[in-house]
Amino acid sequence: MKAAVLHGKFDLRIEDIPRPEPSAGEVLLRVRSVGVCGSDVHYFVDGRIGSQVVDAPQTVGHEFMGVVEALGPGVSGIEPGTRVAVDPNMNCGSCRWCRAGRPNCCPNVRFYGTPPVPGAFQEYVVHPADLCFPVPDSMTDDDAALLEPLGIGMHAVDIAPVRLGDTVAVFGSGPIGLVTAAAARAAGAAKVYMTDVLPYRCEFAKALIADDTANPNNTDVVEWLTDLTGDGPDAVYECAGQDSCIHEAVNSVRIGGRCCIVGIPTADVSSFPGHVARRKELALAHVRRACFVVREGLAIMEAGLVRISDMVTHSFDLDDVEKALSLVHNYEDGVIKAMIHV
Amino acid sequence: MKAAVLHGKFDLRIEDIPRPEPSAGEVLLRVRSVGVCGSDVHYFVDGRIGSQVVDAPQTVGHEFMGVVEALGPGVSGIEPGTRVAVDPNMNCGSCRWCRAGRPNCCPNVRFYGTPPVPGAFQEYVVHPADLCFPVPDSMTDDDAALLEPLGIGMHAVDIAPVRLGDTVAVFGSGPIGLVTAAAARAAGAAKVYMTDVLPYRCEFAKALIADDTANPNNTDVVEWLTDLTGDGPDAVYECAGQDSCIHEAVNSVRIGGRCCIVGIPTADVSSFPGHVARRKELALAHVRRACFVVREGLAIMEAGLVRISDMVTHSFDLDDVEKALSLVHNYEDGVIKAMIHV
Amino acid sequence: MKAAVLHGKFDLRIEDIPRPEPSAGEVLLRVRSVGVCGSDVHYFVDGRIGSQVVDAPQTVGHEFMGVVEALGPGVSGIEPGTRVAVDPNMNCGSCRWCRAGRPNCCPNVRFYGTPPVPGAFQEYVVHPADLCFPVPDSMTDDDAALLEPLGIGMHAVDIAPVRLGDTVAVFGSGPIGLVTAAAARAAGAAKVYMTDVLPYRCEFAKALIADDTANPNNTDVVEWLTDLTGDGPDAVYECAGQDSCIHEAVNSVRIGGRCCIVGIPTADVSSFPGHVARRKELALAHVRRACFVVREGLAIMEAGLVRISDMVTHSFDLDDVEKALSLVHNYEDGVIKAMIHV
Amino acid sequence: MKAAVLHGKFDLRIEDIPRPEPSAGEVLLRVRSVGVCGSDVHYFVDGRIGSQVVDAPQTVGHEFMGVVEALGPGVSGIEPGTRVAVDPNMNCGSCRWCRAGRPNCCPNVRFYGTPPVPGAFQEYVVHPADLCFPVPDSMTDDDAALLEPLGIGMHAVDIAPVRLGDTVAVFGSGPIGLVTAAAARAAGAAKVYMTDVLPYRCEFAKALIADDTANPNNTDVVEWLTDLTGDGPDAVYECAGQDSCIHEAVNSVRIGGRCCIVGIPTADVSSFPGHVARRKELALAHVRRACFVVREGLAIMEAGLVRISDMVTHSFDLDDVEKALSLVHNYEDGVIKAMIHV
Repeated sequence: MKAAVLHGKFDLRIEDIPRPEPSAGEVLLRVRSVGVCGSDVHYFVDGRIGSQVVDAPQTVGHEFMGVVEALGPGVSGIEPGTRVAVDPNMNCGSCRWCRAGRPNCCPNVRFYGTPPVPGAFQEYVVHPADLCFPVPDSMTDDDAALLEPLGIGMHAVDIAPVRLGDTVAVFGSGPIGLVTAAAARAAGAAKVYMTDVLPYRCEFAKALIADDTANPNNTDVVEWLTDLTGDGPDAVYECAGQDSCIHEAVNSVRIGGRCCIVGIPTADVSSFPGHVARRKELALAHVRRACFVVREGLAIMEAGLVRISDMVTHSFDLDDVEKALSLVHNYEDGVIKAMIHV
Repeated sequence: MKAAVLHGKFDLRIEDIPRPEPSAGEVLLRVRSVGVCGSDVHYFVDGRIGSQVVDAPQTVGHEFMGVVEALGPGVSGIEPGTRVAVDPNMNCGSCRWCRAGRPNCCPNVRFYGTPPVPGAFQEYVVHPADLCFPVPDSMTDDDAALLEPLGIGMHAVDIAPVRLGDTVAVFGSGPIGLVTAAAARAAGAAKVYMTDVLPYRCEFAKALIADDTANPNNTDVVEWLTDLTGDGPDAVYECAGQDSCIHEAVNSVRIGGRCCIVGIPTADVSSFPGHVARRKELALAHVRRACFVVREGLAIMEAGLVRISDMVTHSFDLDDVEKALSLVHNYEDGVIKAMIHV
Repeated sequence: MKAAVLHGKFDLRIEDIPRPEPSAGEVLLRVRSVGVCGSDVHYFVDGRIGSQVVDAPQTVGHEFMGVVEALGPGVSGIEPGTRVAVDPNMNCGSCRWCRAGRPNCCPNVRFYGTPPVPGAFQEYVVHPADLCFPVPDSMTDDDAALLEPLGIGMHAVDIAPVRLGDTVAVFGSGPIGLVTAAAARAAGAAKVYMTDVLPYRCEFAKALIADDTANPNNTDVVEWLTDLTGDGPDAVYECAGQDSCIHEAVNSVRIGGRCCIVGIPTADVSSFPGHVARRKELALAHVRRACFVVREGLAIMEAGLVRISDMVTHSFDLDDVEKALSLVHNYEDGVIKAMIHV
Repeated sequence: MKAAVLHGKFDLRIEDIPRPEPSAGEVLLRVRSVGVCGSDVHYFVDGRIGSQVVDAPQTVGHEFMGVVEALGPGVSGIEPGTRVAVDPNMNCGSCRWCRAGRPNCCPNVRFYGTPPVPGAFQEYVVHPADLCFPVPDSMTDDDAALLEPLGIGMHAVDIAPVRLGDTVAVFGSGPIGLVTAAAARAAGAAKVYMTDVLPYRCEFAKALIADDTANPNNTDVVEWLTDLTGDGPDAVYECAGQDSCIHEAVNSVRIGGRCCIVGIPTADVSSFPGHVARRKELALAHVRRACFVVREGLAIMEAGLVRISDMVTHSFDLDDVEKALSLVHNYEDGVIKAMIHV
């Protein structure tokens, strides 16, 4: 089958590799839509994310959906031909965290496109049948693939809940910022304020979901939010992976509010204004991927509680994965989310 | 000033009574819109609710808004002429529960229209200034008065939270059922199923908010919900005050789901299937009025997260309070919410 | 091997039955200590608990510990000869509730001595290796077997938490009442008040753990607790399975306090004072067996945070299971907990 | 009356100042026991804590108890001569946070010995009557004064709860570390591991409460805790105010565990290993003073659930406040807690 194999930094090759065979409990999926995620770009550009290094050729990509092509031994209850969204978090099922209902924290997890686990930029993948969720006709392939990033936003709202009528701020207006804003809105946020250093992303956020936006390059974000809200937002979600945003979050959130760090930091060590965090009695909560959100994401998307399809600004076929990665890497052409249609 | 004074069962008289004077910290409000609540009807029909008895003439009514007419000593920060929504829960501010952030549980609370505290079916009332919330121009008087019942639904969702994508059931499709459904939807419920023994209320609920409705008089509610949901709803809100609905709630909710009793029961003793509650490890949560919901209700109404204005099916002026109470008492003319415009 | 087989009401026979063989992932345990639980007595006396009926000969008993005798295929990390406490809740591991960290709610659970699953009143049992917990030398066999009932009390405290300095009441001073009191004390309850209709159990409770006790047969429990506490206890645990105790719980607990139903009710329908529960904004929480408490129970027992060994008032060998069941059934000879030493 | 007045850095003078008069709702207290806190030392040594500066002569000291000497207007229910513990957090009672049950977050709070509010190193103070708690005969004056620091530890356990059987680590073995450990133990921690850079404090901690201790100067704390616990402690409390301890907390706590920052940091900006916090899905919770802990602290102290009297290693009279401050500042003579007996 055809696959977009990453051999190292900026070295992506379209190759023919063996089609995987489904084992017991697995299904073979023909991949249809795959989103390009910032972490895919990290592997393409840096060859690594922190301690996770691409040291052998492999595919990346994990925001995907597909069609059931064949069933592995012992699988029933799902028909070939079914379009399915997937939970890409293949947890071990037996460790302390899996048993405690936190599969996203499983230390033995196998996650798509995280070395050495293959990703979804290839024609077929095998996947545990119980992590496949049939998609209704009302949803497009891209909608189904968007459930993966949406799930991150939903999990952020599980970690740092929104109360009906809350005012929230989301720092970073890329895909993760947008889905976090969408999830917060669906959970009852009356006001959603967003920031980004890229003007086109501020515009996009305002058109899609934000009540207002600001660019930290020319606006004092803490002052801006204080002017808008008085006491400060009830909850702030850091979705930019920037230390400066953690500081803005702690300094702007209201006393006793919620600070949630969703973005993946670029540096190993993060920082925050400790005295402020203490005087406001804040907890800095972190989000690790997502947990029990696919079925739920399907439900809110079908119910019209989130409208995120417009996030897809660009489409490519499998031969053009490299173009897609470059586009996203360079924030070109107003890109928000690029999709690969396999 | 004119007032609709209740002298006893079915004995309501339009009278002239002295206009109250605002004390320190209070404002004088000219009442504009007052909703007719089931508890007002109880006092009109039965002369009592449980141990709370109308044994001296008094007005009832508590779902109201008004215009600031005059300020009591020491009040600032609010101008005469301002339209305001109110929190009718005049808590003591110094008991254990007020200090702990649960003013709705204050044992010393003074609540509108609860003997011997006067209600709002009169031209003027005095009210603590800090329980008055300015209403934006985008909201009508009736919208502002509806914030009180909406607050009950919002508090129900605080007590028994909705998770994004949840399926919920609401038993009882009167005003409290409808606002609870609206609050649950605003908090992320993907599916909302409702019941009522009155066919017109089922129809109204389906048109306003419900994904589907059923009438317990001709449908086995537990079977109906099992067919629709498989495991059962994630959360069930009892808004009918019926013992049968508590049983339906316990029997239909999924294992480990949430059961929330919002309705005021008619009998002194309620019942539930104990073995089922135990095997499903349920908590039967109760809702006592509402708590910190006026500002928040304003916010979600303004943001368009709830749309409940259509609940107002009838309007009366102060002279016709008795007609309004009778209409609501008899479920006549498709009434959902009747408003008094003073 | 020898087993105490229940053939029907009051028909218990000591028989020779085949020794089970450990399957993959299981160990063979030589049973050493088994507590006699009220549910064992129910099967002996009534032949059933609710819908669970002994309609074929089987052993009962589930509060047990043993010694590893042999390992099934694929088991490692535990040596034959090791004394182990067990979690008797053999959940399926793959249903929605197992995945969500609530194995005690697993609808596919196999539980010792619950028809048709064999119990532990027999010389050997097979058990999943990962539900076996090595016991330190400082703990006796009986201590290890007591971890099962202790776990119920610990789970009650997970469901209805104790805050440091709380006053709690426990209704019912049998083994489950005592372990719930012990767990509440270990979690920081400053005052523990207990009740029982049996005078010897009140005395035992007072000697073991309670600050004071009362007998509902001659004391108005609500008045007694009001006199002792003022506002009422912060939390009340119903451990008697009596409807009257649920009423006492709701009527005595402080406004906004916690009510937790641990006891298994005798009737199908339970009742409570609905208006009181609503005005106090209570949640009536239920406890379903226990969840993640064996390792934790071992830890607090070893640390000396609970001292419950004195609960064992009687010991019998396997030939005398019937005597033990009768003794417990008839509340004879001051029995609290009878142990079978196999 | 006599008072130890701080005029600036290292400039403490015993002076005669006017005795305060109790206003409405206040009582006049004759101070009896006052603990010397690290923050008192900060004002003595640095003349400030962050932005809070001693720019006019004032007393410090806030860990105190006293005897009711006189009642202000309108005070009843407490007799002159009563020994009382106090909650030193004089919150405004009307802001958003006071109403929401978080008086410790009140932005208008007046706190003893925090400029410009006078402290308790003087013979008399006035205090709100409803923040005074009668002390039973079984407790000494010093016990009552120790309730204030104990309350910090109890609040830490409210913020980052202990589950029965948990293993916890406390970094810093000064008074706040010790009371946090004591509170964690009282709440059910089976194992408590502590650290300190001062050998005598490790020894003291081990004698008083810790299962084991380590000195970060010669031990890799993360390795030490991993060896002891396997997965890492369930909860870690940072009580040293050191950035290095925040790193140790994040690096040692188990995946999904609790990190609680109790210590007051020395620098304005704190740091933590962001990737580790994210992968473990941690929340870094902060503690702001204490909240609803005096009555509760009295209760657990009286019940024998905490034993912290031995923390008092030194006593001084009011004339020797400077000696006491110097002793604590220099960690001399094995000091843990120095008390002033007025």
